[in-house]
Order: sequence, then C-alpha cells, then structure tokens
Amino acid sequence: MFYTAFNQKQSLEPEFMTARNVSINPLNRKVGLLGGGQLARMLALKGAELGLEIHVLSKSETDPAAQVVRHWHQGDPHQPEDLKKFFEKVDLVTFESEFYSGELLAQISEQTQTPVRPDPHVMRLLQDRLSQKESLLDHDIPTADFVAIHNLEDMREAAALFKNKFVLKKRTGGYDGNGTHVIKTSGQVGKLLEKISIAGNDYIAEAFISFKREVAVVMARNIQGEMIHFPLVQTFQTDNRCDWVCGPIKHPRFEKLVLDLAVYLSEIKYVGVIAFELFDTGRELIVNEVAPRVHNSGHFSLNAMSTDQFTLHWLAILGFDFIESKPLTPAFVMTNLIGTSELSPVFPNAREGHLHWYGKTENRPGRKMGHMNYTGEKSKALLKLALAERKKIKNLGPK
Amino acid sequence: MFYTAFNQKQSLEPEFMTARNVSINPLNRKVGLLGGGQLARMLALKGAELGLEIHVLSKSETDPAAQVVRHWHQGDPHQPEDLKKFFEKVDLVTFESEFYSGELLAQISEQTQTPVRPDPHVMRLLQDRLSQKESLLDHDIPTADFVAIHNLEDMREAAALFKNKFVLKKRTGGYDGNGTHVIKTSGQVGKLLEKISIAGNDYIAEAFISFKREVAVVMARNIQGEMIHFPLVQTFQTDNRCDWVCGPIKHPRFEKLVLDLAVYLSEIKYVGVIAFELFDTGRELIVNEVAPRVHNSGHFSLNAMSTDQFTLHWLAILGFDFIESKPLTPAFVMTNLIGTSELSPVFPNAREGHLHWYGKTENRPGRKMGHMNYTGEKSKALLKLALAERKKIKNLGPK
Repeated sequence: MFYTAFNQKQSLEPEFMTARNVSINPLNRKVGLLGGGQLARMLALKGAELGLEIHVLSKSETDPAAQVVRHWHQGDPHQPEDLKKFFEKVDLVTFESEFYSGELLAQISEQTQTPVRPDPHVMRLLQDRLSQKESLLDHDIPTADFVAIHNLEDMREAAALFKNKFVLKKRTGGYDGNGTHVIKTSGQVGKLLEKISIAGNDYIAEAFISFKREVAVVMARNIQGEMIHFPLVQTFQTDNRCDWVCGPIKHPRFEKLVLDLAVYLSEIKYVGVIAFELFDTGRELIVNEVAPRVHNSGHFSLNAMSTDQFTLHWLAILGFDFIESKPLTPAFVMTNLIGTSELSPVFPNAREGHLHWYGKTENRPGRKMGHMNYTGEKSKALLKLALAERKKIKNLGPK
Repeated sequence: MFYTAFNQKQSLEPEFMTARNVSINPLNRKVGLLGGGQLARMLALKGAELGLEIHVLSKSETDPAAQVVRHWHQGDPHQPEDLKKFFEKVDLVTFESEFYSGELLAQISEQTQTPVRPDPHVMRLLQDRLSQKESLLDHDIPTADFVAIHNLEDMREAAALFKNKFVLKKRTGGYDGNGTHVIKTSGQVGKLLEKISIAGNDYIAEAFISFKREVAVVMARNIQGEMIHFPLVQTFQTDNRCDWVCGPIKHPRFEKLVLDLAVYLSEIKYVGVIAFELFDTGRELIVNEVAPRVHNSGHFSLNAMSTDQFTLHWLAILGFDFIESKPLTPAFVMTNLIGTSELSPVFPNAREGHLHWYGKTENRPGRKMGHMNYTGEKSKALLKLALAERKKIKNLGPK
C-alpha cells in the first residue's frame, strides 16, 4: 500500500528512546501549540479528538486557535519569558509556523526539559533558505540552482550567472510571495539593484525555473522512523497565495522523488508533518519550498484522506505508529476562501463542499478565512463545481 | 442517491421563516450546548470546524466538552437561573441529552427569545416513553405493544395481557438499561410486584419482543424540511451498554421504515439529528427507542461517512441545506472503549483504528471513555480486527 507507512522502520536510536518510552496513554497528555492561526486551530481540533489536552500560546484571545481550546495562554512565541512559562506547563511542544526562532526554542527546551517536535535544530536548518537549499543539495534532492547573496556585487554576479532570469528570496521569514522578487530582464535587475538594501546575508538568488504547473506533496515521519505520504497534488496560486488544490495527480518521477525525500527526512531525523512545494517542469519534479509543518496543500486530507495531516502530525510527534491514510475517492479539490473585502462573508444555504471556517473575527482582502473540500469521481468536474460554489459566497474569493 | 437529502423539501412554514432568514454567515455565530459529556464534546469539535463560537453549560471544568471550548460556563442545565444566564449569551441552543426538562427549556427560550433546537416541545413528546410510544403508534411506526402503568393493578393486568413476558420501563430518564426490568415468568412478576413502588404514572409495560439482533438508524431533518439518513447498522450491547456497531447491513423492510420515519419526523416537525434503536425480528423492524439527539450508534460516521452526525446536526439546526453523506467504504465498525478498572488505560503504540478519546479525567468500570472506528472491505474481518485491537488496550473493554 503506497500511502501507508513505508516498511523502513529503523532500529531506535538512543536519543529517541526516551520519547518512545513516554507513556502513550492519551489521557491527560498536555501538549503545547505555538501560534494561534488556522493551522494551530486545526491541529487543536484534531488533537482534542485524540484526547490531548491542548494548550495554545498566542497573542490574542480572538486568534483562530485560541477560540477552540480551554487552555489558552496569552503570550508571544518569540519572547523567551513567555516561552519559558509556557514550556513549564506542558509535556511536549509543537508549532504552526517555522518562523519562530529555532535557536531560542532549543534553549528553552533544554532549560525546561520539555521536548519540541519537530526538533528546533531541524527547524533551524529548514527555516533559513540557504541552509535548506544546501541540505537538499547535499541529499541529491532536485532543486533550483542558487547562490547566496551577501552584497550588491554578489547580485550582479548572480544576474550574470542566471542570465537575468532568477528569483531573489529573503533567507528567512518569507511566505506567500512576501520577500520574493522575480527577475526576468536586465532592466529589472537594474531597478532591483537601485531599490534593495542588502544588510547582512539576507538573500539567496535562485535560477528561474519555467514550470508547467506547481504541485506539492505532504509527508510525515514519526519518532520511530516510520514514514507516510499523501498523493501528489496540483496547487494553483493567485496573487502568490494558494487558491486551490486538486488531486491526486500523476507524474513519472513522483515515486522516485518520494523515496529520495524519505531518505532525506530520515537523515535529518525529521519528526512530524512536512510539506514539499514542487515545480512540475514536465520531465522533472523540482523542490521549490520546504515547510516543516502542516500545510495548506494538505488541507484536502480533512475530507479526502482516511487520516488527515493534523492527526498524522500528532501521531508522529507522540510516538504512535502511523495508521493508514489513503484517498477516500478517486478525486478531490480544496478551495481556499480568501477575503476580498472588509464586509462579512455571506454564504448561501446550499452547497456541496465541506466547510472549514477559521473563525477569524475580521474579513480582510487577502486573508485566508477558511477553505472548502470536495470529493468525487473526476477532478475536472469537481474543480468546476468547487469554483462555481465559491463564486456564490459574498466577500470571499480570490477575486 | 439514497443517503442524500430526500427530495421532499417542503414549503417553509411560517414559524420556520424567522430561523430561515437568520444570517447564516458562520462568522461569530454563538451557539450554546447544554451538557458537558462526550456527545457535547464531539458536537463542539465539529461545530468549531464550521466556524461556530461554541459555548458549553456544564457542571465541571473537567467535563469532556468543557475541556475543548474557550467559552465554558459553569452551571446546571436543570437550573432555571443557570439556563437563563446562559441563554442570554448565545444565539441558539442545542443539547446532548434528551433528559433536560423540555418544559423549562421552552419557558426560558420564550423569556430570552433564544431558540432551542430540537424544539423543547418535541423533546417533551419524545423524552416521556408514554407519549413517545403514543406518537409512534399515531403515525403507524411499528413498535412493541404497550400499556401505561399507574398502579399495581395495571401491572397485574399488563402481566396477564402480555402472558408474563414484558419489559417494564420508567417513563422518563432511563438509559443504558437503568430503569428497565425484563420480565419473562410469573415468578418474576410476583417479585417485581413486591419490590416496586409505583408512585404516580412512572412506568409503561411493553410486550417482550424476541429479536434476532438489535439494529439502529440515525436520521436528520433540517429547518427547511430536508431529510437525510445513515445506513442501517447492527448494534451489539454488553451489560446494557453499546459495545460495538457494525454496518452497513441490509433488511427488506429498511427502506419502507425510513420513509415512514421521514413522514413521522416531518409531522412532528423535528429539527436535528435523531436516532432510532430497532429490533430486527427477521421479518420486521420494530422501533424500540427514540433518542432525539446525536447517538452512539452514529459515531462510526466520524470516519466512515462522508459527513458525520455531529456536522449534520449543526447544518440541520442552523438552517443550512444538507450536504451528501455516504459510506466511504463497503464496511465499517465502531467499538466503544469502556472502563474496566480505575487504573489508567494503556494503549499500545500500534493500531489500525481511528481513536476518539473523550478526555475523561478518571477511568471507571462501565464508563464510556472513547471509541475506535474502523473502515474497510468486509464487516466480519473488520469486527474481528477491531475486537482484537481493543483487547490489547489495558483497563478498557467491555469485560
């Protein structure tokens, strides 16, 4: 069964033994979630299903995840003091964003003896695009050529190397196109050189890849080394934000890539759910971004897979063996519901999709407010239905 | 499609128009849940998925539902003052138990103008076994013959009428075999007459039905009159508690019964999820109990149906059209995890079933602590697997 755990269970390494031997009785298990957005909300809801006592650390009581837990703690996951108090209250910590400080989390984890999973050292490796790309390269995972940019001279050299076709990306903290500049002409290089300030080594330049479409795969690895992956899906972006996801799709290189990624995850000792955003160039699948967390490209799994990505994340970091996760129907589609106005969304009574609504207190243009999942027989018909239904909701889009 | 909403949508009646016209934007919709048990917990989690702001009224902060909501209100759903305060905070109220006072809820609803769904008048009709049975009889729904018991003389007459084979049941508040006496001989009649005190008209006597097996069906009806039902399932009890559920199963009378029940629900203007526990006598399907709420015999739907009973309940009472709910695999099984000890349960790392754990703070013999869902190709093999996996969990059973 391709979507089940690989038969690669490894002998347990010493550093994992402690975690492995923690009582895995779900009763009264206290887990901490850093961040209060929709990813944390969905993690919290699926964790509660498993019987976990979920604690959330976030800034505001109206945050999506804060609204659905009994134990909400006001604080900032970037602040050492807030983190320390929070870590002391729980048995295990995980997070919804890879942009917290891996270094700080590792420190607090050591001080409080509260484990963080995925491991903050792995988080550090992956949250910096330079070390992320270097580690992909080290493990022969196909990815676009890149150079580190330390100053304007480096950028001129990169422009020459990539023949003025490249993407300049911030090394840390970029998301949804923020911190990304796509350059295709020498004129654009000139403008960029004028306006950009490169303080420190904040950027990398990547060769521009012409792709047929963007695709993604969500994988997970548990403490004991079992792995599992979802099918390959197409992801469609509008204004640099995920607009819809459709699958499963086929690609001749997919099976090989998944095996390579499995070895990669095993070597970096990754624990938890992880998403790989890929370019499908026709012949090749090339890794574009790695997100060490649950991911928008896996939201379809809430209705379309026998086990969803949020449940898999808990199983992975708690040391449970994986249960099977396979597609429940031949096709599925997810559409994001993104604010187009500050007016409240209005839903028609009738719909065929499954609504997942994040409870954000204000609608805003460009804000991810919820998503809809559809399952059925044929992708194309399903996508048509899903987009038509989304059009009937007022003040949500895209567009 | 048999599991989809019937094509019986009715013209909206005046009393439903108000509810129909309430904005059905899920954003910031405040709903109140009476009771803090596992049914309320699962309703809360699925309500949060839809974006509802869930408020729970229950006695203790450690109640299963209290643990998974931001807005928990300490109080007793049987106390007028607690109810009144709670009703004033929310837009709509529903409940996890049919044993709150229908009369009281109707009063408070009128005072506060906060609607309760299912309607407290319908709750009153169904929570009293005498009026429940009379209403089934009035609508030609097959059910065991019965007589009201006002005094010992009535009981003697019932014993004669049913030839000493009958079941004596409390009119209100009975559950899991509590308040039920099964009588099969004249000796047992004599003993019962000696020990029982019949103050007021607390009991009914029902003809004893010999059945092949117990089965059940979960249905739902929304405000606008659409209906939907789950497949017929077998339910197996141990010590008067639901032990496991297995389905779908077939019965030649099922389709007719469902249509009769649909008319019944329409005539009593029921809104929400409702469960019918049935006797399968081979030839006939006979209604044994009616539970006007989400029900243990529908828990399989969390993993085995494309839309679960908790989501359907919210759609029904909020005035959304139903979305399709169909079985995701040819077979499914649910096993209850019931305490066998006061020691903490211990789970093995590996399992194939989907765990739903209620977070109760103490394990106790006979207490429903959680359940497991299994989906697959063949019922028998699945049931065998499910029971074998349950045996590997320490301090949970039955047995």
